[in-house]
Amino acid sequence: MCGSEGLTKPEKVSTFSQENVFRIFRPSDTVRMKSYPSESQESLMSASPEAVTTSRSPAAALTGRWQPVGLGQARITGGFWAPRQLRNGEQAIPSGQGQLESAGNLHNLRLAAGIGEGEAIGPVFADSDVYKWLEAVAWEYARNPSEDLLERQRELTAIVADAQREDGYLDSVVQLRYGDEGRYQQLVWSHEHYCAGHLIQAAIAQVRCTADRGLLEVAIKLADHLVANFGDDKTVDVDGHPVIEMALVELYRETGTQAYLDLARWFVEARGHGIISNHGHEPTYFSDRVPVREAATVEGHAVRAVYLAAGATDVALETGDAELLEALKTQFAHMWATKTYLTGGLGARWEGEAFGDEHELPSDRAYAETCAAIGGIQWAWRMLLATGDAKYADAIERMLYNGFLAGVSLAGTEYFYVNPLQLRGAAHADNNRSPAHGRRGWFDCACCPPNIMRTLASLDGYLASTSADALQLHQYAEGAVAADLPGRGSVGLKVETAYPWDGAVRLTVEQTVDGPWAVELRIPQWAEGATVNGTPTEAGEYARIEREWSVGDVIELQLPMATRVVAADPRVDAVRDCVALERGPLVYAVEQSDQQADVDDLHLLPEASVASSYDPELLDGVTVLTARGRAGTGHQAGAWPFEPGRTDQVGDEVEITAIPYYAWANREVGAMRVWLPRG
Amino acid sequence: MCGSEGLTKPEKVSTFSQENVFRIFRPSDTVRMKSYPSESQESLMSASPEAVTTSRSPAAALTGRWQPVGLGQARITGGFWAPRQLRNGEQAIPSGQGQLESAGNLHNLRLAAGIGEGEAIGPVFADSDVYKWLEAVAWEYARNPSEDLLERQRELTAIVADAQREDGYLDSVVQLRYGDEGRYQQLVWSHEHYCAGHLIQAAIAQVRCTADRGLLEVAIKLADHLVANFGDDKTVDVDGHPVIEMALVELYRETGTQAYLDLARWFVEARGHGIISNHGHEPTYFSDRVPVREAATVEGHAVRAVYLAAGATDVALETGDAELLEALKTQFAHMWATKTYLTGGLGARWEGEAFGDEHELPSDRAYAETCAAIGGIQWAWRMLLATGDAKYADAIERMLYNGFLAGVSLAGTEYFYVNPLQLRGAAHADNNRSPAHGRRGWFDCACCPPNIMRTLASLDGYLASTSADALQLHQYAEGAVAADLPGRGSVGLKVETAYPWDGAVRLTVEQTVDGPWAVELRIPQWAEGATVNGTPTEAGEYARIEREWSVGDVIELQLPMATRVVAADPRVDAVRDCVALERGPLVYAVEQSDQQADVDDLHLLPEASVASSYDPELLDGVTVLTARGRAGTGHQAGAWPFEPGRTDQVGDEVEITAIPYYAWANREVGAMRVWLPRG
Repeated sequence: MCGSEGLTKPEKVSTFSQENVFRIFRPSDTVRMKSYPSESQESLMSASPEAVTTSRSPAAALTGRWQPVGLGQARITGGFWAPRQLRNGEQAIPSGQGQLESAGNLHNLRLAAGIGEGEAIGPVFADSDVYKWLEAVAWEYARNPSEDLLERQRELTAIVADAQREDGYLDSVVQLRYGDEGRYQQLVWSHEHYCAGHLIQAAIAQVRCTADRGLLEVAIKLADHLVANFGDDKTVDVDGHPVIEMALVELYRETGTQAYLDLARWFVEARGHGIISNHGHEPTYFSDRVPVREAATVEGHAVRAVYLAAGATDVALETGDAELLEALKTQFAHMWATKTYLTGGLGARWEGEAFGDEHELPSDRAYAETCAAIGGIQWAWRMLLATGDAKYADAIERMLYNGFLAGVSLAGTEYFYVNPLQLRGAAHADNNRSPAHGRRGWFDCACCPPNIMRTLASLDGYLASTSADALQLHQYAEGAVAADLPGRGSVGLKVETAYPWDGAVRLTVEQTVDGPWAVELRIPQWAEGATVNGTPTEAGEYARIEREWSVGDVIELQLPMATRVVAADPRVDAVRDCVALERGPLVYAVEQSDQQADVDDLHLLPEASVASSYDPELLDGVTVLTARGRAGTGHQAGAWPFEPGRTDQVGDEVEITAIPYYAWANREVGAMRVWLPRG
Repeated sequence: MCGSEGLTKPEKVSTFSQENVFRIFRPSDTVRMKSYPSESQESLMSASPEAVTTSRSPAAALTGRWQPVGLGQARITGGFWAPRQLRNGEQAIPSGQGQLESAGNLHNLRLAAGIGEGEAIGPVFADSDVYKWLEAVAWEYARNPSEDLLERQRELTAIVADAQREDGYLDSVVQLRYGDEGRYQQLVWSHEHYCAGHLIQAAIAQVRCTADRGLLEVAIKLADHLVANFGDDKTVDVDGHPVIEMALVELYRETGTQAYLDLARWFVEARGHGIISNHGHEPTYFSDRVPVREAATVEGHAVRAVYLAAGATDVALETGDAELLEALKTQFAHMWATKTYLTGGLGARWEGEAFGDEHELPSDRAYAETCAAIGGIQWAWRMLLATGDAKYADAIERMLYNGFLAGVSLAGTEYFYVNPLQLRGAAHADNNRSPAHGRRGWFDCACCPPNIMRTLASLDGYLASTSADALQLHQYAEGAVAADLPGRGSVGLKVETAYPWDGAVRLTVEQTVDGPWAVELRIPQWAEGATVNGTPTEAGEYARIEREWSVGDVIELQLPMATRVVAADPRVDAVRDCVALERGPLVYAVEQSDQQADVDDLHLLPEASVASSYDPELLDGVTVLTARGRAGTGHQAGAWPFEPGRTDQVGDEVEITAIPYYAWANREVGAMRVWLPRG
């Protein structure tokens, strides 16, 4: 209905050089463009530099503030992740475009662009799925450039550009359903800023990875429209769903335009004062009960909460706001200690897709939305760069290998929206997101699939960072990492490892500079007994190896891969007297297909020893754990309630077989549990 | 908008005699009007009388099919329930009318009646709250007749009658929002049959309790409209929310019109074939995955499921459908064993207000909607009358004193929508139904408050039943019960008891007939060691005392009131290694106000003995339980996950004080839990 008359089409830059591509590749993170110094950077550097240093972190002596190593400079080339990225690029992303077509997302944008006739289809935030998909295409292009990807990108970017209104406004569903007078009238639910945020993130990925400024021009026009419309002396309102905060800070980093950072900060500060309450949900749902800088925990809708926190961390980083960063440290710590699943899953509740209360972490009804794990990784990454504290890299690892990775099938094209830690055998699906359905190709609310695509495609960007004299490795993956040490030139390491199946990581210097510099290696908290070149090193910190390096020098990191039997905080009522199995970064689960007894009532013997063996044929190759357990006794005789401790019979001893949690529901969708009762 | 032109106003019968009132009083149950013999009655009597007899129930030798003793003949006059009924009548019901006014429910009906201007307000099922309130007024009038109640009834009945369309159709919100062409077009969500069902139930209560046929005329016209529109050769569709099934059977009992029973049966049979699936929720939500007669459990939305089951039980009773009744027995047993809280609460999930999977019974996120407890009582009552099995009366008792009663404040005018078995200290409300708010005066979706009102007002009707030669007492309350033994005259008992605080129940014969007849007394399953006139009797059955009685004869029933420490089925993961305290019919809870230590982390010593004492000043008078426990150790030091079994310190021994669960959140809304970890 809304035509495209008068829309300015941005100039498209489709030429690029391979060299250029790799120089500017990096994920959508806390990278500041050096060509755009700003006031806030100066204030950070001079007025309160401690704001984002790490005086209380274990790694404080080693680190200052870290800069991420972007895609291209950090490269995954094999091992655990490469085939997953390959499937993402070859299967998931092309299939995603088809899903966006058939679900109507592209239809909406085309209508808004004046092409075709009809009405908007689907949820009000439909555009955002297109933008996340475009972001995935751009990152994927950085990993594996192809004309096909560029063609897909050009096609969809053109539609988006044509859908934009002349004054910069863009939201196809609002344009079609509510017209110009409907703009920003129901921000609590309209997701207009949310869509804008994902558009901006996609645009930044696109210009960084393909040098195409097409989407960036759209994003800048839209950001300028937001700047013109929101603020203390303009419209005082915030979007029900955060993400615009992260996006505007990144756009500030990309363009140097101070107004974007200012607006991001304004959106962060405006929240928590009840602007968006009284809309059917309570303020808690929208992270609107308490201002971010006063909050002591995360609450409400989990994805919203962690996206907001990630954006607030960006604001703190760029403005040198020490108080805000301290508040975010407190919130992250409280979330991690009391509201995070063993899998790193975030959000205990289906109702409101929300964080529960402290220690409310049911296994069966865990919501643990895949998008929340992604948002958690994004937040932790910013906290890591801000503080240099290894615990944030540990958190990324836990979320990445478990809560996030379970969200996608081994084939790469089916997705879990929710990621419980238990499914009972008799479960019936009563919701299209129910895990009893198994993973699905798409959803009515399809936030997760393209979010997974962009995360897998940009994963290389979470491996490493640099400081003045050091290169930090946070995640271990087969590949290579290179970075510039400021004023000294490039250093580079080759990484060889079968992690997470094997704890040996062999690093070979491929590029070096004159004089000493350091390699800093995260030793995970779980890796008690780790060694670097045979020397024991502390877990939960960065091992720093500083010397003058020659090309060909080798560092041998050994992370112990003993199986761990672990327990939860005793206040987590839902898993009282239960244990779980972990090995390396992986949380394990027992799945009905592998068991001799009913998983719903399966116990691990208290003194059971756990054996491990790698099975290259199973589930694309996994290390399997086995231990002695016993079948449950089933229900007691007679009517409940029962006498405590009465056991009518003792179940048979059985062998329990556990597989990595991420791999569950790839054979059949049956009973599964992470936490096992002892006894 | 829809005017009242041409509407026929039913004649109102406002005269009545006290004698007449009491003769016809009974709750909306399985009473057949003897003045309307019907074909189905004959078929029941002759063709398959065993269909609803109880050959496999423990009480089979004692009972046939039981007839309820209605209000007036069964009377609560003191003790535990009378003050609650008094507050319901004097405070809640009058205040309810104000709430219906301010929430817009009456506004909608007035608009539909052509009075005033505007648009419909509130949810599509708004009319149903008015009907439940009218039903409560009628039952309350039976207990405590007043001109004020009659005046309120007349006023609202007149509005309802005026709102009805000439052809019998009635649903104010659909009339106002969708017009004639919108009728029955979206039954999955429109609740048109649901509203009709509550109207019919109110009308039956009204004619039985006040002899006013005003609402009955409206109900009959509406029922005739349904009969004319639904069936195999008409519209094949069912309402997303059951209740019409129960209502139509009762209207058949009231009027003898076979078509109402036939339509009720048709609605029951039409369900479970996917008529209402594919509407955003899966068929499970609507109890539409499996036909009622094939289902082995209850699932989906809990209130819908139990209302449907209650209606199906009515159909089985009236049609002599043995197969259907057997299926319902199986479903009830499975629900009770695997999907029912210790409190009798039904519905584990917030999402979809639904039953969870087997043994999915979290304490903290228990939904356990007050309306589901009410529906559970209604279903159990019908199963009791059909089978004579004491377990259904036990179930009513558990639901009534715990899951239902917690839904209303001691003052009688504030309500819980959801009834969890645990609230943590740091809980924040993120939903208007959140228990962290405490009880509330009304809700946007206000199904529960008027449902509570009608249940409290008609509670007398659940006390007793009769068979050919016996009077059964199912619930023990201070008062009197009288009934006609067919062809022999009236028998009557006075009931004196301080139940549930004291287990002594003294029954005195007040009326008798020539020759022997029996008193049958439910001995609750929990009452091991009960005696009747000093003689031990079996728990979980009816004790039958048969003799020739004289006025003044006394029966002394002694139900042991020892405190019980109870455990759940070991497959209920959420309360592993926990115990709860019970005394008599009451489940107990520990509330922060009474404790020396943090309820979130409070343990009961394994060998703790429990003391009880009655405190007349506390919470309107309750028996308090005390036992030794210990404070928790809080969280372990260091980062999680932890080593299993590691305890950094042992908490202090403390005294634990427990109050009846129903009484929680009447002082402050703080931490509460029913299940306590042992240790």
